[in-house]
Amino acid sequence: MKRRTLTDIPGVYGCGMCCGIKPEKLDLCYIYVPECSGSAATFTTNYFRAPCVTYSEEVFAKNLIKAVVINSGNANAATGEPGYKNAQRTAAAAAEMLAISPNAVAVASTGIIGVALPIDKIESGLEKLLKAPLQCEGEKVSDAILTTDLVAKEVFLEREISGQRVAIAGTAKGSGMIAPNMATMLGFLATDISMTSEEAREFLKTAVQESFNMISVDTDTSTNDAVMLFSTGAKDVKLSDSATRHAVQDLITEACRELAIKIVRDGEGATKLISVHVKGAQLISDAQAVARSIIDSPLVKTAVHGADPNWGRIVMAIGKTPNVEIIAENVEVFFGTTKVFSGGLPIAFDRAALRTYLQGSDVEIYVDLGNGSATATAWGCDLSHGYVDINVAYS
Amino acid sequence: MKRRTLTDIPGVYGCGMCCGIKPEKLDLCYIYVPECSGSAATFTTNYFRAPCVTYSEEVFAKNLIKAVVINSGNANAATGEPGYKNAQRTAAAAAEMLAISPNAVAVASTGIIGVALPIDKIESGLEKLLKAPLQCEGEKVSDAILTTDLVAKEVFLEREISGQRVAIAGTAKGSGMIAPNMATMLGFLATDISMTSEEAREFLKTAVQESFNMISVDTDTSTNDAVMLFSTGAKDVKLSDSATRHAVQDLITEACRELAIKIVRDGEGATKLISVHVKGAQLISDAQAVARSIIDSPLVKTAVHGADPNWGRIVMAIGKTPNVEIIAENVEVFFGTTKVFSGGLPIAFDRAALRTYLQGSDVEIYVDLGNGSATATAWGCDLSHGYVDINVAYS
Repeated sequence: MKRRTLTDIPGVYGCGMCCGIKPEKLDLCYIYVPECSGSAATFTTNYFRAPCVTYSEEVFAKNLIKAVVINSGNANAATGEPGYKNAQRTAAAAAEMLAISPNAVAVASTGIIGVALPIDKIESGLEKLLKAPLQCEGEKVSDAILTTDLVAKEVFLEREISGQRVAIAGTAKGSGMIAPNMATMLGFLATDISMTSEEAREFLKTAVQESFNMISVDTDTSTNDAVMLFSTGAKDVKLSDSATRHAVQDLITEACRELAIKIVRDGEGATKLISVHVKGAQLISDAQAVARSIIDSPLVKTAVHGADPNWGRIVMAIGKTPNVEIIAENVEVFFGTTKVFSGGLPIAFDRAALRTYLQGSDVEIYVDLGNGSATATAWGCDLSHGYVDINVAYS
Repeated sequence: MKRRTLTDIPGVYGCGMCCGIKPEKLDLCYIYVPECSGSAATFTTNYFRAPCVTYSEEVFAKNLIKAVVINSGNANAATGEPGYKNAQRTAAAAAEMLAISPNAVAVASTGIIGVALPIDKIESGLEKLLKAPLQCEGEKVSDAILTTDLVAKEVFLEREISGQRVAIAGTAKGSGMIAPNMATMLGFLATDISMTSEEAREFLKTAVQESFNMISVDTDTSTNDAVMLFSTGAKDVKLSDSATRHAVQDLITEACRELAIKIVRDGEGATKLISVHVKGAQLISDAQAVARSIIDSPLVKTAVHGADPNWGRIVMAIGKTPNVEIIAENVEVFFGTTKVFSGGLPIAFDRAALRTYLQGSDVEIYVDLGNGSATATAWGCDLSHGYVDINVAYS
């Protein structure tokens, strides 16, 4: 089956090239939505933000963004004021080639930190890359944003909403080992559903909270994380109608979730996808905090890696969640469909059968807090020798 | 040099035995302070607390505690109401032998969870162990509380305070792999400095906050953690005098810190002790949060394991600390005496020399937030294959 990518949404253009930041691989690309009706982005909460993040957040806050330039191989992070100027110069170079305002161009960078962005390579690269900007080479965009990801991460979903056939496409990169490493997460989505920037911001915020914010490879947060959403404005659906708005939200959330899960599956050293489903919480934020506490626990991650039905570690991780009151006797824990803990006491289970289940590549953990009706799901990966091997490497 | 232990404080008695919970090792012990003047304890914040924790917290809140019975090999955790009754029975059995009130006896357990405490073994063990309770076999106490710790962890400090020679002794156990595992931390301290329970509580709370609460092997918190302090009341120093009170606090904090660092050095798979010193914070709680964020980061832990001077990960860990505002341009980072980051920019350094430094068994990381005068230190260990190996094991 042909890969369907961002540029399979009519009105979304993009291509990638090697401008020389990396020796031979694609390292520079753009996404261009000339008739963009709405644009939105969310960024890392880390206080050490790369200058490119600062720059892009500023332009997204004030303007309709029609294009983004992304480079890999250099994160333009910990590069100070010169780094900010290089982000500006990148946007300006693209804007000139596209004949649009520099304020309509965002940038994103990922790769080595603390090294000046090779702005000359980027500027001369953009001159070639944007000579004919209406290209539809989405695969090259997906490939050019990767660092040490093992695979490209793409999503393409279609839905019937309000009698219209609508679509959303996206591409993402996850954690990779760069020296010194920051495990950046980047995601770019485009849809033909017409929406304003304000609407796009609302949709994206909710979608990210239930997808990219609910995954964990380790517990670390990069300086460069960014997720962006663009609308071509091609398909009008009635967003003032609550059912329609929910359908659109579901579609955008699902696209983000698919990308997020692909990032986790390709996590450093990962051999298994772990999904943690929490229900019975008083608040959604409580359910999310408990799910994340479980998925973040190195003891849970190593136990799953070893196919060890070690429910005690899950109970421990539930109980240590900050600021969430747990009623221990109400809690139930399942591995897949097997209940292992209930009413404050262990449940007898077929250990051999459960071990076989845990040896699979997908492990589901279900937790019922028995204390309300809020739910959440988090995704993570196991902790293996591979993670240690990748991350001890000499920078 | 002879080990100096808890029972080298005159008026502190203790001994250990094998009562049969473990096949051949010491698994049951007591500490007894008949003339106890003050007692205090702190316990895990995990919501899934072992019944022995619930029991001991209740008796410490209301009574002067003169004795504690500790067993290893079984954590009496996730054992429900019967587990609570077994904690009560343990205390009652010891109280009867010691001819004191059951309300003056605390209990602590560590080992496998979800398995009923073999109360018959404990009761018949205590009958033998407490027949002549004024024993001074502190080494056996230290050994009997261990699970898969590789070494016993003891401290003995003497000081001249207000013209009196005073002492504090302690013993602790750290994380060990039990199936299913909870990595319990237990600590027991005794001093001859006379203090009330109220004073002991204040001293212990402050000391634990700057010692046991500032260490991290992984980020997990056990259901059974407990630290207890007993005073024999032998040496009167004027605690109403502020300088004296500070000297006593320093002594108790130092004893807890020595035990805490010994726990980290013996952490699962640990090959290095990492000390993170943070200064220049607005609040002590900010400095502590930043220090813990660095020491908890798996990317920092793996980098140190690999002797990789990867300052980017430290900067990342500073910036991701929740609820602490960081002024990126003010931050300075050092490995040992080598400055690697300042003013938002990397500093050139001798990579080979720094790599040699990081290959040592003690790594010091210094961070100046440049935003105030509060300081904190946290201790942790590196993340190695050993940690993964220990924790993937079949429960």
